[in-house]
Amino acid sequence: MTDKMTDHQNRQFRLAHRPVGPVRREDFTFRVDPARAPEAGEIMVAVEYISLDPAMRGWMNEGRSYIKPVGIGEVMRAGALGTVVESRAAGFSPGDVVTGALGVQSVATLAAKDCVKVDAGLAPKPLFLSALGMPGMTAYFGLLAVGEPKPGETVVVSAAAGAVGALVGQIAKIKGCHVVGLAGGAAKCRYIVDELGFDAAIDYKSEPVPARLRETCPKGIDVYFDNVGGQILDDCLAQINLRARIVICGAISQYNNTTPVKGPSNYLALLVNRARMQGMIVFDYAERYAEGAQAMAGWLAAGRLKSREDIVDGLETFPDTLQKLFTGENFGKLILKV
Amino acid sequence: MTDKMTDHQNRQFRLAHRPVGPVRREDFTFRVDPARAPEAGEIMVAVEYISLDPAMRGWMNEGRSYIKPVGIGEVMRAGALGTVVESRAAGFSPGDVVTGALGVQSVATLAAKDCVKVDAGLAPKPLFLSALGMPGMTAYFGLLAVGEPKPGETVVVSAAAGAVGALVGQIAKIKGCHVVGLAGGAAKCRYIVDELGFDAAIDYKSEPVPARLRETCPKGIDVYFDNVGGQILDDCLAQINLRARIVICGAISQYNNTTPVKGPSNYLALLVNRARMQGMIVFDYAERYAEGAQAMAGWLAAGRLKSREDIVDGLETFPDTLQKLFTGENFGKLILKV
Repeated sequence: MTDKMTDHQNRQFRLAHRPVGPVRREDFTFRVDPARAPEAGEIMVAVEYISLDPAMRGWMNEGRSYIKPVGIGEVMRAGALGTVVESRAAGFSPGDVVTGALGVQSVATLAAKDCVKVDAGLAPKPLFLSALGMPGMTAYFGLLAVGEPKPGETVVVSAAAGAVGALVGQIAKIKGCHVVGLAGGAAKCRYIVDELGFDAAIDYKSEPVPARLRETCPKGIDVYFDNVGGQILDDCLAQINLRARIVICGAISQYNNTTPVKGPSNYLALLVNRARMQGMIVFDYAERYAEGAQAMAGWLAAGRLKSREDIVDGLETFPDTLQKLFTGENFGKLILKV
Repeated sequence: MTDKMTDHQNRQFRLAHRPVGPVRREDFTFRVDPARAPEAGEIMVAVEYISLDPAMRGWMNEGRSYIKPVGIGEVMRAGALGTVVESRAAGFSPGDVVTGALGVQSVATLAAKDCVKVDAGLAPKPLFLSALGMPGMTAYFGLLAVGEPKPGETVVVSAAAGAVGALVGQIAKIKGCHVVGLAGGAAKCRYIVDELGFDAAIDYKSEPVPARLRETCPKGIDVYFDNVGGQILDDCLAQINLRARIVICGAISQYNNTTPVKGPSNYLALLVNRARMQGMIVFDYAERYAEGAQAMAGWLAAGRLKSREDIVDGLETFPDTLQKLFTGENFGKLILKV
């Protein structure tokens, strides 16, 4: 690979070492290098918005997973949106807006085939990283293809004010379900009920979750969409119905653990209720993204779905901004504006 | 309900109080009463063989489950086989052999509709409590309907020398799978490989389970049929393949717990592998028992399936004999001969 120089300076965060527990600024190296000019089949993209996701914490760990860990010294992986500034790939021209795994950097040079062109006229750019991007596809396929909710059933979702959870609850409402969300703090709880139309909210930080689940889910839980793991997963398992479906989408309460993950002690509720617990990874539905995006765009346009972004300015804030996901500080889809 | 007297004396074990931890003899009251004569629609059955199952431990506990707990003072629930001695029900005559929830007693008087007549000429009577009874149906539907093994896949089963496990492994072999069983002790391990045709056995009492799973399942685990829970469930989760299916049939390692159940710490393997963990209760397949029994009888007749019963003589030994299930002493389907 040649390393031609260009006029573009690329500000990047590279993984310095694998974090133990919460991520700290020292786990990354910040560097400014000349951006690499594109070779045949490649494009150079000026990155504008970077998606910050809980899954990023997992990518920093060594070990077998659904995707290769980020290597030490590599630019930190992240989904992002940007504008093409130089192209040596057919079908891509300067000015095109693309999404892809552009990384935590200001300029990305990568194979055009790993990017997707989006129609930036359709919606504000950050939406392509939230309702119309990975969180949207995760909510859509995780709930509908794995959770399989039926009208009248009770759907519970955790991290309900988060990027995925807020969409899961709204889609479940559109599908005619009774929807209860768990979120941390009164503001988030008010938001999911008053603005997003959830039937009820449980503030897991200040309310007794088992008792509130009994109150808000008088007919038991048919679908639990789990983003958090830990005690809340156990509390929900204790109240599932016959043939309930538990979608394991994430376990943010466990990602920074330095002790072993807490397994769900109540997993035998699966036996008693002939229920299932199933993991989902959005990439498995790549062939159906068009279907998902179309549905989401339709609901957005019709005002049936709301998307909230928490946009933080400044690439340099990356390590601290990422922490907001794990402390529960962010409110809506967390996005870094470059 | 009248309480007419008959000549028959009924020896019974009644639940005296709910056990804490392992069951002890004091948890039951042994009584001898005159058997109750049948009323209209009922039959009186001389009980011959009583099935002892891990599930019985759960039925002794208070609390919501898939079936009502046995009440204090009630005859202990058990599946059993016996011969009709008196009938006031159409279609049932003295001499008919029936199975049903006859209980841990020598004479049962119950509604004929709760019993099933069996053709005792087809197979030795104990078989109707093993391969042709609940363990057989549990293995057949649990493996095929929930585990959905495909030819060439790797199936792992725990308690593999037990009533259900031994059948699961053999059915998986018939279906063209690579089959590995976990059992306690060299004799059981030899038995499942040499006599039942499993591809490999792991003696969980003396061998390192993770290392032996790696050796015996070089292509990973596609289906894990779990009868035991605890550490073995975690060890298997750590080696599952993409889209693996985990059948939760039981958790005998946890039934006598006085501390909370150990949840599977490795449950996030479900997420990474988009795998599912699903509970099964045999009663859900009642409408398909004929299909299952026919298949099992055919394989038995063809010599493709072996069933081993561990028959203990004497109703009075019940509390001690039941313990064999939890200490791992029994070898094959545990049956009490009245």
